Amino acid sequence: MGSLEAKRETIGWAARDPTGVLSPYTYTLRNTGPEDVYIKVKSCGICHSDIHQIKNDLGMSNYPMVPGHEVIGEVVEVGSSVTKFKGGDVVGVGCIVGCCRDCKACKSDIEQYCNKKIWSYNDVYVDGKPTQGGFARAMIVDQKFVVKIPEGMAPEQAAPLLCAGVTVYSPLNHFGLKNSGLRAGILGLGGVGHMGVKIAKAMGHHVTVISSSDKKREEAMDHLGADEYLVSSDATKMQEAVDSLDYIIDTIPVFHPLEPYLSLLKLDGKLILMGVINQPLQFLTPVVMLGRKTITGSFIGSMKEIEDMLEFCKERNLTSMIEVVKMDYVNKAIERLEKNDVRYRFVVDVAGSKLDQE
Amino acid sequence: MGSLEAKRETIGWAARDPTGVLSPYTYTLRNTGPEDVYIKVKSCGICHSDIHQIKNDLGMSNYPMVPGHEVIGEVVEVGSSVTKFKGGDVVGVGCIVGCCRDCKACKSDIEQYCNKKIWSYNDVYVDGKPTQGGFARAMIVDQKFVVKIPEGMAPEQAAPLLCAGVTVYSPLNHFGLKNSGLRAGILGLGGVGHMGVKIAKAMGHHVTVISSSDKKREEAMDHLGADEYLVSSDATKMQEAVDSLDYIIDTIPVFHPLEPYLSLLKLDGKLILMGVINQPLQFLTPVVMLGRKTITGSFIGSMKEIEDMLEFCKERNLTSMIEVVKMDYVNKAIERLEKNDVRYRFVVDVAGSKLDQE
Repeated sequence: MGSLEAKRETIGWAARDPTGVLSPYTYTLRNTGPEDVYIKVKSCGICHSDIHQIKNDLGMSNYPMVPGHEVIGEVVEVGSSVTKFKGGDVVGVGCIVGCCRDCKACKSDIEQYCNKKIWSYNDVYVDGKPTQGGFARAMIVDQKFVVKIPEGMAPEQAAPLLCAGVTVYSPLNHFGLKNSGLRAGILGLGGVGHMGVKIAKAMGHHVTVISSSDKKREEAMDHLGADEYLVSSDATKMQEAVDSLDYIIDTIPVFHPLEPYLSLLKLDGKLILMGVINQPLQFLTPVVMLGRKTITGSFIGSMKEIEDMLEFCKERNLTSMIEVVKMDYVNKAIERLEKNDVRYRFVVDVAGSKLDQE
Repeated sequence: MGSLEAKRETIGWAARDPTGVLSPYTYTLRNTGPEDVYIKVKSCGICHSDIHQIKNDLGMSNYPMVPGHEVIGEVVEVGSSVTKFKGGDVVGVGCIVGCCRDCKACKSDIEQYCNKKIWSYNDVYVDGKPTQGGFARAMIVDQKFVVKIPEGMAPEQAAPLLCAGVTVYSPLNHFGLKNSGLRAGILGLGGVGHMGVKIAKAMGHHVTVISSSDKKREEAMDHLGADEYLVSSDATKMQEAVDSLDYIIDTIPVFHPLEPYLSLLKLDGKLILMGVINQPLQFLTPVVMLGRKTITGSFIGSMKEIEDMLEFCKERNLTSMIEVVKMDYVNKAIERLEKNDVRYRFVVDVAGSKLDQE
C-alpha cells in the first residue's frame, strides 16, 4: 500500500474535452476525514448518463472528468467516526456523495432530491475540489454515501444495481407498486429497462416488455423472463392491451408520443419516466383525466432504498446481465453503448485493469 | 300535477343543431321504475362543458339535446324500491345517471370512471331512449345517481357544487390533499377555479391564485379570500414562488406550457389537470423527474364524494358565487360564459321560469 501520502495519489480514466475520450489521469484524493471511507475500486458500471456528462451534452461539464457512478470497491481505511464499515468490507457508491442534511428532502431520507446534493463526479466537493468518479483506482467518500454490498454478491453483478437497479426500485417503492400480482409494462430494454424486467418479475409482477420492433422478443422473453412482448407499432395488439397495466416504466431516452402508452394503463395507472429527454413530451389531457392516470418520474433512489434494494436482490438471487470489460476497452464500450450494442450493461473490471496504460 | 300520463310529458330547453341555441322542446319521460326518482327541477347550473356538447365541439352530439348536469330539484314521486328519498326532499343530480355496476370502478365506488357510464344528457339510457338534462321541468333518475341536498343549503347555491365543486373536491380527496396547512395553487379563475379557491381555503390551505394578468387580483383576494395572487408573466415573482406549492389545480381550458407551473411545485408536488384540451400539452422530463412531481388529472367525482363534499360545504357554510338567471336568458348566458363574463357560475332558476316561452 505504501505510505499514506502515496495513497492520496490515484489514477483514473478521465475525459479531457467534449470528445469524451477517456485516458489515464493522475490526481490527488483528499485525506481520509473522520466521516470518510477510503475505497479501492473493484468494478464500475457504465451508465448512459456518463456519456451525456463526458460529451458535455448538458452544457455543464468540467474537465478533466473521471466518470463512473456504479462503483463497487473494498474498504481500505476508515475515518475516526466511521463505525459502519471496516477494512476489507465490500461496499458500493452511487450517483451522490454529498447533500445539505438540513432540507426537507435530507430530513426525509430522500437526499437524492436535495438541491445541494453533490454528484459523484463532475461536481465540486465541500473542500472546493472537483469530485471524481469510479473509473479510478480509489475514491474517498463520506460514509453516508457508502453502502455495504451483501455477502455473496459478485462485485461486477452488484455495480449496475447502484444506479440502474435503484432507479427502477425507488419509484416502485415510493408509489406503492411493490405488491405481487401487479401488471407492469417496461418500455425500452437498455440498462435500466432490463433491471426493470428483473426487479418487476422478482416482485411477482406480470411483465410486458414494450418495444418498437420485434428484435428483442427472444431476449425479453427467454433471457429476462418477461411474460409478454408487445410491439408498439402493432395496432391490433396495442388495442388489445388497452387498459391492462398498473404501471409503465418508461426508459426511452428520446422523444416519443405518450398517448399510446397512457392508453395501456388501467384506471389510476402510472407512467413513470426515467429518461432525461431534452425535447418536450406531449400528451392529451382527456387521456389522463378520464382514467385518473399519472405521469410522473423519479430520480435514482435514496441510500436507504439502495440498501433495501440490495437486500431485495440478494434474497431473490437477482443479478444484472452485464458484459465485463477492462479499462482499455472503455472508449470502445462507450461507442457501443451509444448504439445500444450491449446486453445490458458494461461493467469495467477496474481492479483487474492496468490503469496507467492506454 | 294532473294525471300520471300528463306528468310523463315535460318541457325542456334543447339545442337542435351545432349552433347550440336552446329553445323549448317537449318530450316524454319514462315511467318511474322501481329504482327511479321523479324530480321537479328547481335550479340548474351552466357548465363550460355544456357549451362543448351543444355546439358539437367533440363531434359526438345528438339533437335535440337538453343540457344541464348541475341539477337541484324536489322529489315528486319515488319508485317502489326507493327508500333513501321521499316526496318533498331536495335532491341533486350531477353528470352521470347510469353505470354498469360490475366493473372495477363501479365496485370501488368510483363509478365516474366506469367505461359504460351514462351521461345525464347526450347519451342513451338503458331503455334505448336519449337522456336529457336539467334545463327542463323534470327528470327521472335512478336513485343511485341522486344525492340529498343538506338542509338549509339554497338550491341555486348547491347547483354548481354537483359538477364544479366535486371536480375540485375529488382529486384533493383521492390524492391525499385534504390536510390543513398545504400550499395550493389555483390556475384559472372560472367556475371550477373559484370553487377551487373556496374549497382549498375551507380545507385550511394557503391558496395562491395564478393568473395571466393582474385583472382578477381584487376578486381573488377580497371576494374569494385567496392568500396570494401570482401573475404568471411576472418572471421575478414566479421565480420567488419556485418550489413552494404542494399542488396546483389547473383549470385552464386551452393550450398552455406546463413548465412554469411544474416549477412552482415542491418535491412530490402534484399538477392536477381539469381542462379538456384538444391540443397536446407539453413538459420536459427532467422537471418532473428531479422533483418526483406528478402530472395527473381527474374527472368529476363519485356519488360518495358528492355526498361528502356537500356535507363538507354545509359544515363550513361554503357557498358558490353565482349569477341567477331565468331560462329565457340562457342563450345570452351561454354567450357570456364563452367570454368568461360571469362571476363565477350561471345558475338558471328553472322552477321560476316559464319554460314554454322563448
